[in-house]
Amino acid sequence: MSIERISSPEVTEPSAGLWSNCLRVGDLVFVSGLTARDKSLQASGGDEYAQAKQIFARMSDLLAAAGGSLADVVKLTIFVTDIENREAVWRARREVFSGAFPAASLVEVSALAQPEIRVEIEAVAMLNQGGRPAESHGQA
Amino acid sequence: MSIERISSPEVTEPSAGLWSNCLRVGDLVFVSGLTARDKSLQASGGDEYAQAKQIFARMSDLLAAAGGSLADVVKLTIFVTDIENREAVWRARREVFSGAFPAASLVEVSALAQPEIRVEIEAVAMLNQGGRPAESHGQA
Amino acid sequence: MSIERISSPEVTEPSAGLWSNCLRVGDLVFVSGLTARDKSLQASGGDEYAQAKQIFARMSDLLAAAGGSLADVVKLTIFVTDIENREAVWRARREVFSGAFPAASLVEVSALAQPEIRVEIEAVAMLNQGGRPAESHGQA
Repeated sequence: MSIERISSPEVTEPSAGLWSNCLRVGDLVFVSGLTARDKSLQASGGDEYAQAKQIFARMSDLLAAAGGSLADVVKLTIFVTDIENREAVWRARREVFSGAFPAASLVEVSALAQPEIRVEIEAVAMLNQGGRPAESHGQA
Repeated sequence: MSIERISSPEVTEPSAGLWSNCLRVGDLVFVSGLTARDKSLQASGGDEYAQAKQIFARMSDLLAAAGGSLADVVKLTIFVTDIENREAVWRARREVFSGAFPAASLVEVSALAQPEIRVEIEAVAMLNQGGRPAESHGQA
Repeated sequence: MSIERISSPEVTEPSAGLWSNCLRVGDLVFVSGLTARDKSLQASGGDEYAQAKQIFARMSDLLAAAGGSLADVVKLTIFVTDIENREAVWRARREVFSGAFPAASLVEVSALAQPEIRVEIEAVAMLNQGGRPAESHGQA
């Protein structure tokens, strides 16, 4: 194996010397904490739902570039600036994930990179395992 | 390998379309950020010690369902709402872990899912490695 | 494989029953959330730049003890207490990492272990993969 930097033409990388959006080692993929930004890396603004939707679109593009998809995500870590609005993030997630959902943590932090950024989401994915299984255990 | 959703009869899963409490891929296990909740998913309340104890009990049940135990945990990420009370979490941890302890981070966040929830803990475990070794390096 | 506790003579471990600074399972390494502390585990203080530099020095020592280096880090999670000063952390990172940088998240939390601690950084590394590749995709 080797450590590969994965980039997508749809997702602008930060300047050199900051971070990589996505690294792959074998089947294991680490996606950086993504925020809602356009191709010029300007923060897109909008509410938590809009931001989460854009984040998941960027994540999907990066995973596609790695040879996978959102179906391969095993863990999400979600940082929000207002926990009261977390259901807007859930709604966005529900629109792009299916089957058994990723394991996840969601916490409210005191600030993200810019005041208009309300959500940051990072992911771990495992490629080539057939994706997460169909939903089967939801009980509540 | 495949991605398996692990559930325990002791730990109620969230509704479909939210998250999975635990996913396993080969020997690698991701446990979601757990909080102190009863089987009806009501927040149990109590202080940080009581909440951490219940979280570790839920984590233990999930890892047992995966074929492992708390001895297989390699990383804990602990989010608290009052860093001054972190030693209560340490005390709970000391009562359920032994040998060389997991790697860990512990930070204070500005809020968790509900006001009475004071602790959220996620874990990564590696099954079938014989568990963490005996303590040998504590020095301070 | 087995789970190994990695310690460095340069990095004092916490007391028994708290956490391990670094665990290795095969090529996968988990480094605990590190803070700027001296060998007696006293917080070193200083600004975000100074603290991040010391944290990366400690991380480097731990990874060296594991048989690797900072070149093997694939993911950094950075917790700061003042997001306005994040560029000081970036500057420290730029002085010790090269090539394609690790994937990373950076968020502001409301408190870390002591008031003078302004930065906590955890890492995941993958040893024996030849390290991260040369920078190639920086675009912004």
